[in-house]
Amino acid sequence: MESFDNQSLIKRIQAGDMRAVSRLISLSENRVPRARDVQSILFKQATPAHVIGVTGSPGAGKSTLVDRLAIEFHNRGERVAILAIDPSSPFSGGAVLGDRIRMNASAERKDIFIRSMATRGALGGLSAATQDAIQVLEAAGFTRIFLETVGVGQAEVDIVRTADTCLVVLVPGMGDSVQAIKAGILEIADLFVINKADRDGADLLHKDIRLMLSLTDQDPASWEIPILKTIATTGEGSTELSQSVAEHHQWLTTSTAGHERRRRIVLDRMRRIAAEELLHTFLERHADDLQTFSQACLNREITPYEAVIKLLQN
Amino acid sequence: MESFDNQSLIKRIQAGDMRAVSRLISLSENRVPRARDVQSILFKQATPAHVIGVTGSPGAGKSTLVDRLAIEFHNRGERVAILAIDPSSPFSGGAVLGDRIRMNASAERKDIFIRSMATRGALGGLSAATQDAIQVLEAAGFTRIFLETVGVGQAEVDIVRTADTCLVVLVPGMGDSVQAIKAGILEIADLFVINKADRDGADLLHKDIRLMLSLTDQDPASWEIPILKTIATTGEGSTELSQSVAEHHQWLTTSTAGHERRRRIVLDRMRRIAAEELLHTFLERHADDLQTFSQACLNREITPYEAVIKLLQN
Repeated sequence: MESFDNQSLIKRIQAGDMRAVSRLISLSENRVPRARDVQSILFKQATPAHVIGVTGSPGAGKSTLVDRLAIEFHNRGERVAILAIDPSSPFSGGAVLGDRIRMNASAERKDIFIRSMATRGALGGLSAATQDAIQVLEAAGFTRIFLETVGVGQAEVDIVRTADTCLVVLVPGMGDSVQAIKAGILEIADLFVINKADRDGADLLHKDIRLMLSLTDQDPASWEIPILKTIATTGEGSTELSQSVAEHHQWLTTSTAGHERRRRIVLDRMRRIAAEELLHTFLERHADDLQTFSQACLNREITPYEAVIKLLQN
Repeated sequence: MESFDNQSLIKRIQAGDMRAVSRLISLSENRVPRARDVQSILFKQATPAHVIGVTGSPGAGKSTLVDRLAIEFHNRGERVAILAIDPSSPFSGGAVLGDRIRMNASAERKDIFIRSMATRGALGGLSAATQDAIQVLEAAGFTRIFLETVGVGQAEVDIVRTADTCLVVLVPGMGDSVQAIKAGILEIADLFVINKADRDGADLLHKDIRLMLSLTDQDPASWEIPILKTIATTGEGSTELSQSVAEHHQWLTTSTAGHERRRRIVLDRMRRIAAEELLHTFLERHADDLQTFSQACLNREITPYEAVIKLLQN
């Protein structure tokens, strides 16, 4: 692999060099120490991008929809990236995403950046890796970054909810009655999309979502959650959807509520970093004690909780 | 709900009262402070159970297989519990497990304890809740506790790998070639089960797994991983499987390697508890600073990482 020194890496990324972008994302994923220095310099000079999370039920057509939206923004001259969040199940390989990329139109536009963010082993690092990738893309001048969930697990949803704008994609007649959707999802939705809207049940689903939204407490000063209909395979509704997405971004950047939301995202990130750093220090400091106490736990003399509290009081 | 004071809760659990068991599991899940005191007393008096994790590809027949194994051990007079680990996707509701329980034979035996461990919102708590539930079941005298993954996400697998014995269930002809199975799964398997072994491809899959196992470094003193064939729907092979599971338990409790493994599980648990406690203290201590620094991050004056490091140095 081509090697870059920090200076040339920074320059190339800021010039929008895709290969340099990929390189720094990989360095960050692999936690190469110098990646952090480069990230720090880039972060302070970059303009925040609009990060759009897209989640929804399996088979809802999320990737086709993201493809359409990417093309919409790209057609308006914007720099667009797609990060596919894939806490890949240890089973069943990873061929799905590969196929998807080959099929979609956005992959043919060379300057739309597409990358799969997959776990390699433990789950914890995926969120951090995704945030790092967003920072690199911002530094390279990307203005709209899509976070698309490949699966529909809680882990992906936890990552997507850190986006500026969250799209929840549902389809008629797939058990996506409002009763079936758990509360957590309703809370993260800034826009509802009813995809495959030519199917039976689209109006019913629309009515259900509207009813449910009317039952929740809505601050009159806050964003009014729209419900849009699309047929991603034909492109119907995607222009309107992209406009609605842009409106939400506008609202975010000009309202107090939008500001507070961005702050919450940063706080969430700081919390994750703090947890990791604190644990690292704790484990280094108490390496020997941990061996002793774990044996005491196995002997049932002390619970793991009590053991930890004792170590923390040292 | 019936209320118990701590003393009567402890007595009833130790007498094996199922309602009291459920009650304490719920109290622990909801992080009621007194649950910890009760857990602490129970932990020190309980005998460790044999915890058996079962994971595998979707449609591999995991729940039917667990059902068979539960009946096998129950027939020998053992006290058996099943915890279904379900980091329920926010989509598609939770009806699957309900159906499963109604269909399975073990549910008809009143003294087999079955419970679904589901996330309510964030993922982090599921692992802790599962460990707490195991402790309660141990105190109530359960000797074999199955952890069965409902989904096949990394999150579930991370929980199942904390079991004493891990079964990986594969089926012929479902893309479960050895190439498709990721390394992480091979590392956690103590036993491989080829379920639906009457299907075409069972022998090929068997040969593949054996080949792959022969390629990994195996300590001659360590457990030799068996590959068993079952047909869970008819019960074929389940007696042999239960014997193999019991043998692994025997190995665990009598070998040094088994002891080290139990210690690793305890250490992992202590790490999780420490991370949580440390973060809690950090957030309380730095509540105001976090507000200030998050604004500095939004202004791009400092990265979230740098902000956290500054706070930690205070």
